[in-house]
This record gives sequence, C-alpha cells and structure tokens, in this order.
Amino acid sequence: MKPILETCFSPSLLHLYDLNDRIVVIIDVFRATSTMAAVLHHGAHAILPVADVDECIRLGQEIPNSITAGERDGKVAPGLQYGNSPLEYPREFIEGKTMVLTTTNGTRLLHQCHSAEQIITGSFLNLGAVCDYLIQQQKNVLLACASWKDRYNLEDSLFAGAVYDQIGMHFRMNCDSTRAAAHLYRQAKSDLYGFIQDSSHFHRLSAYGLQYDMEYCCKVDQHNVLIQLQEENGQSVLKVPAV
Amino acid sequence: MKPILETCFSPSLLHLYDLNDRIVVIIDVFRATSTMAAVLHHGAHAILPVADVDECIRLGQEIPNSITAGERDGKVAPGLQYGNSPLEYPREFIEGKTMVLTTTNGTRLLHQCHSAEQIITGSFLNLGAVCDYLIQQQKNVLLACASWKDRYNLEDSLFAGAVYDQIGMHFRMNCDSTRAAAHLYRQAKSDLYGFIQDSSHFHRLSAYGLQYDMEYCCKVDQHNVLIQLQEENGQSVLKVPAV
Repeated sequence: MKPILETCFSPSLLHLYDLNDRIVVIIDVFRATSTMAAVLHHGAHAILPVADVDECIRLGQEIPNSITAGERDGKVAPGLQYGNSPLEYPREFIEGKTMVLTTTNGTRLLHQCHSAEQIITGSFLNLGAVCDYLIQQQKNVLLACASWKDRYNLEDSLFAGAVYDQIGMHFRMNCDSTRAAAHLYRQAKSDLYGFIQDSSHFHRLSAYGLQYDMEYCCKVDQHNVLIQLQEENGQSVLKVPAV
Repeated sequence: MKPILETCFSPSLLHLYDLNDRIVVIIDVFRATSTMAAVLHHGAHAILPVADVDECIRLGQEIPNSITAGERDGKVAPGLQYGNSPLEYPREFIEGKTMVLTTTNGTRLLHQCHSAEQIITGSFLNLGAVCDYLIQQQKNVLLACASWKDRYNLEDSLFAGAVYDQIGMHFRMNCDSTRAAAHLYRQAKSDLYGFIQDSSHFHRLSAYGLQYDMEYCCKVDQHNVLIQLQEENGQSVLKVPAV
C-alpha cells in the first residue's frame, strides 16, 4: 500500500498529526529553509538550528569556524552577525563554516518536530531534491508549514502544493490542506513570484526592501540539495547527507 | 477607516485572534450552519446549541415544544431524536419549535467564541443575509471555520472565500487565510458542488449516502435568513433577529 501524505498549515495544528512514523518536511519559504538550501549548497559544513538568540550567540562563541545568523520579525536579530537571506551566503564566504541559525518561525518548528522519524527541510530552491527523496523513501510524509507566528501563510502552502503536484501519485492522500495547497499551486505555478506578491509576508518583507530576496526564494531547484536533520557530537544539525 | 476582515481556518487557531471587538461568523457548511439556516427559515422559534449529547437530552426534556437533534462523526447521535440535515426540517414539522442541537464541530466552536462582540452563523444557504449584515454593521469580522476535528477543510474555507469575494471591498484585509479562501472560491464557484466532491468531508459523508444533503448545502441563498446568537431566559440561543 502506498504511504500517506498530509499537510499541516501551522505549528498550532501539529498536535493533530502523529509524527513518529513520518518524514516531516519543514517548510519556511520566506526565508529560513531557502537560506538553508543556499548555505548548504554552497558548501557549509552544517547548520545548527537554535530556538533563541542568546543560545545562538553562546554556541557561535563555542563552535570553531562558525558564524551566527538569524532574524526576528524579518530583521537581523540584535547580537547576531548575519541575516536570514539566501543571497548573503556565497560559496567564497560560507564554504566549510558552521552556521548557527535562529529564525522567527522555521527553527522553532524544527524543535517542535523532534519526535519525527526523520526531518528534512524544503523550499522551492531545493524542491527537486525533496521530491526525489520522498519518492525513494516510501514512507509517510507530513509537509509542515512554518507559517507566520502560527498563522497560515500562502508561500509555505504553495510549496506543499508543489510537492503534491509533483509526487502525489506515489502517495495516498485524503487531506483537505493538501488539496487546497495543490489547487493554489496550480493556479500560481505559471508565475509564482507574481502570485505571491499579494501575501502578508511579501507585504511585510518588501517594507524592508527584500523583494529581490523573495523573488530568489521563488526560483525552483536553484540549490537542489537534500537537507536532513542529523546528530553530530550530541547536537542536532542540518546537513547534506553523505551519499 | 474600513473595518478589518480575517479568516480563521481551525478552532485550534482561534487563540491568534482577538474576538472581543468582532463579529464572528461561525461556518460549518457540512452541515451544522446549513441546518440552522433551513430550520430557522422554516419558522423554528430558536436553536439552542449545546456542547454534549447528555446536556442535549436533558434540555430537550425541560424545554416545552422542543426537539433534540445532532450528530457525532456524521451520524445521528444515540439518544437524540433527529439528525443534522437541512432536509429533515420542513416548515410543517419545525415551525414554532425549539431545536436543541449538538454537532461534532459547529456547536463546539460556537461555545469557544463566547467572548466575541457578536456571533452569527453562515452557510451558502444564507450567504446573502450574512453579507448584507456585515456590510451594514461596519465592524471588524472574523470568518471562523469549524473545520473537521480542528483540521482544515475545504468547504468552510470556500464559504469564507465566497464572503470575501462578495464584500471584500468594504473591508481592510491582510490575511493569507482569506486570500487562499478567495483564490479557491474563484476556482470553484462555477461548479461548487463539483469542486467539493474531492474533499475529506464529502468522502466521509457520502459513505453514509448523504450526497444529496451536501448538494443541497451548496445551494446559494436557499434559506436566506440572518442567524444571530442572542440571550433568551438566561440561555444563548440562535434566532432570526426581530426586524
């Protein structure tokens, strides 16, 4: 029998899903999981996702060859070195480094999903790698949208819809969140960036001049790496799994 | 300045919204709020929404000229007299009676929204009355979807989208749930019943042979009455307000 695929629109709805027999795909398109794709595609050693700014600063001091990065409410958090933009991390800068990262929504959701059998992260930048992996694994899947402070957002559900649009035939699905996401994606896919320009997050981030960031986050397969949560030296880190 | 309109996709997300300066529209298209529209349009005195089956039975015994009705998981709940179908209540039967009603999702959500400034109920059967009232009141609005056991569902968000499609220009809106609902509604509106046939609730209820019920719940303005939560003899009841 085919495995099950479902979509969760908000961390506040996570309790409705049993995570322990699932691959959970963490989705935070604007911008945590997009930044993760760029950073790891450009050869960073690992990303250490942490829940709060103080822990981020402390671990940044402890870990050799690391940088601290993150945002609160769309802006670089005070005390951190770098922001949450996929464009901030060219290979020349990030290769070999460990990034200690905290964000408003995405890193928090990662911690909420610790009971999942596996965790990977997804964004349009690595859509293909996510889809290939889910087909190959043949396990139940939860597409978990980070949303904005627990409120439904368009861009994360559009990504869930894109995944279902590409690989739905490999899964059983009876989940209205997935259906709605797929309907929206099919409406949007010919001009994803155009569609997303009427969304809460676009309005919020464009007030900080971040339009180009968001346009970049809508590019499909630009940084097509699989990103998986793994244990390393007693820490949970995001890495590109060794082949 | 125009009032605000927002949409809440699940009772589990209600804590994100401030209810006390709002008109909350309770939406449970399949089938509580559709049944309410039929029952009150056909001249019932009032509907007393109660949270559990035991209370429903007790109040049914206390209140003169009343009937008990309700469902759990789509079927008539054991111990109650009638079900949760808008087709069960012709005028000859229900006129002048009080209905004591409990349902899986809709009546529970009503109780969760007790702090709202006003509560009305909405379904396609009384879409026009809901829209006219919201325009006339010029107050902030929350479209509150009952969903299915806290999981997002298509039919309730389609109704939210229909409301926004009709009266959005009278409100300020920066809410992705409302945007998604409106996108979906515009995709579905030429054949609402056809669109809804691929949804969790349709699959669930059609297994009980309730297709005709759901087709009926997709008819627009068939029972076009305004339904409001009011206090009567110390009880919260749903009634058609006196003009």
